[in-house]
Amino acid sequence: MSKKAAIVGGGVIGGGWAARFLLNGWDVALFDPDPEAERKIDEVLSNARRSLPALYDQAMPDEGRLTFRGSLAEAVAGVSWVQESVPERLDLKHKVFAQIEKSAPADAVLGSSTSGFKPSELNAQGGRAIVAHPFNPVYLLPLVELVGDAAETGRAADILRGIGMFPLTVRKEIDAHIADRLLEAVWRESLWLVKDGVATTEEIDEAIRMGFGLRWAQMGLFETYRIAGGEAGMRHFMAQFGPALAWPWTKLMDVPEFTDELVDLISDQSDAQSGHMSIRALERLRDDNLVGIMRVLKASGSGAGGVINKHEAALRPEKLR
Amino acid sequence: MSKKAAIVGGGVIGGGWAARFLLNGWDVALFDPDPEAERKIDEVLSNARRSLPALYDQAMPDEGRLTFRGSLAEAVAGVSWVQESVPERLDLKHKVFAQIEKSAPADAVLGSSTSGFKPSELNAQGGRAIVAHPFNPVYLLPLVELVGDAAETGRAADILRGIGMFPLTVRKEIDAHIADRLLEAVWRESLWLVKDGVATTEEIDEAIRMGFGLRWAQMGLFETYRIAGGEAGMRHFMAQFGPALAWPWTKLMDVPEFTDELVDLISDQSDAQSGHMSIRALERLRDDNLVGIMRVLKASGSGAGGVINKHEAALRPEKLR
Repeated sequence: MSKKAAIVGGGVIGGGWAARFLLNGWDVALFDPDPEAERKIDEVLSNARRSLPALYDQAMPDEGRLTFRGSLAEAVAGVSWVQESVPERLDLKHKVFAQIEKSAPADAVLGSSTSGFKPSELNAQGGRAIVAHPFNPVYLLPLVELVGDAAETGRAADILRGIGMFPLTVRKEIDAHIADRLLEAVWRESLWLVKDGVATTEEIDEAIRMGFGLRWAQMGLFETYRIAGGEAGMRHFMAQFGPALAWPWTKLMDVPEFTDELVDLISDQSDAQSGHMSIRALERLRDDNLVGIMRVLKASGSGAGGVINKHEAALRPEKLR
Repeated sequence: MSKKAAIVGGGVIGGGWAARFLLNGWDVALFDPDPEAERKIDEVLSNARRSLPALYDQAMPDEGRLTFRGSLAEAVAGVSWVQESVPERLDLKHKVFAQIEKSAPADAVLGSSTSGFKPSELNAQGGRAIVAHPFNPVYLLPLVELVGDAAETGRAADILRGIGMFPLTVRKEIDAHIADRLLEAVWRESLWLVKDGVATTEEIDEAIRMGFGLRWAQMGLFETYRIAGGEAGMRHFMAQFGPALAWPWTKLMDVPEFTDELVDLISDQSDAQSGHMSIRALERLRDDNLVGIMRVLKASGSGAGGVINKHEAALRPEKLR
């Protein structure tokens, strides 16, 4: 297998994929018709170069070569992985994958970063695309949700582990896969809270990061609740908390209307909350915190830390292992 | 103000409150008719003693004195704070608060750890209780949601800051306050995913802690999405992601039936996931990770780290500040 990847679409997500492959020694061919693409990718790469190597206690592979290609066909020639990260419009994805299938090697993994579409939708007109849905920043967060044909997702998982990621193969295709269904539920409820004047965007963020967000960096929902059940564990917790499901917390079940007023309210509150820092500065703060947190988890072996430990061991030359 | 608190109900939450007050130099009088209460509190205290001081780079105050009282009236005599953490039954809370109001000093803060009830419900028969809803482990996580009379929550907020916590005053009373509405949304959706065989409890936990959980330990939902919008910020993000609200992700809007089969399915999967570690060992792993993560945030000043920095400065003797 050649360590060559094609990245189709160079936004925040495509740029993150490019950085993840490059810093793990893969050559990357990028295709994006946006004239700003090169500048944007450079900025993501510069964030990745200062943060990803800091997770490891040994040198990473030599960085791969990044080339910008003038056509999709040139970009995908001879690669082992094609990652599509174009905007979330199904007609556009169909068009892009039709071209990819024509020009990419028959044994290349064809991944889509889509958060909303299922493999059956991506391949409605034929094709062998799988969902390979990553999380921002792609160069630091290990999670990739894989959905689709078992042989294809199996090959994809091996490659992803090789670049330090954590493939989570979803058992059945479902709208929004797993993580985004959870995120969507929180987003929806948060919009209600802002719209109804119960809390501002900043207060909701504090409600997350001062409490359960700290728990979820290391253990998820179920393991946390297992502990909360005390000595009696999960069954006790379920008995205590479960029946609350039937309570009439109706706002949870309803969709706020997506008006200009709501967009303004959220955007203005977000400006008041974070407007004193540039997006660039926020990115760097986020990345510095992520590196620190993941290094803590590396020491304990929990979650993302365990992924880094395994990857680091695999990076070590054979004779030193 | 005397640094004396009464803790009514000594379970996981009550024990956490006791530890938080004691390690910050408050005397604590505990009332819980459970004959096991003393042993349970000792175990929470021992977890707290090994973790909370590790957040600070200077000595904490001398530990306060813990006494177990035979009656509620004895426990609340002469205290500045009474914290109720009995089971979530409104009739029981009414009975307990009626006794507290009779025996506690008129200027004591009367807080309830309830996650489900509103102040208007707690005080339906009169009284001045407020909601002071903490998060497990109470001795480490800073968040306390305050709901109720403005003068009472204002006094409560000052005291909570004094013991290193982060009071978040909720603008309007609402079922489940803020954080638990978000948690409930995730819990509900997760139960669907397990029930429908899309993912196991372990897979859902991985979907959280390998991705967005790492983000939420330091920034919440809105600040994270502001960054995801890239250079165009929040308005761009809303335009891109917002319309998905109208998509038919119907399971999000529906309540799974809470059957014995569902409880068994979740409990069995949780055993398979975490059963190799005792609850005690899981607690210690969780606490060690929390301390490490919060120390990282302390260095950057983000979120919970900022709270510790401020508290540490306030702990310093006047002449050293």
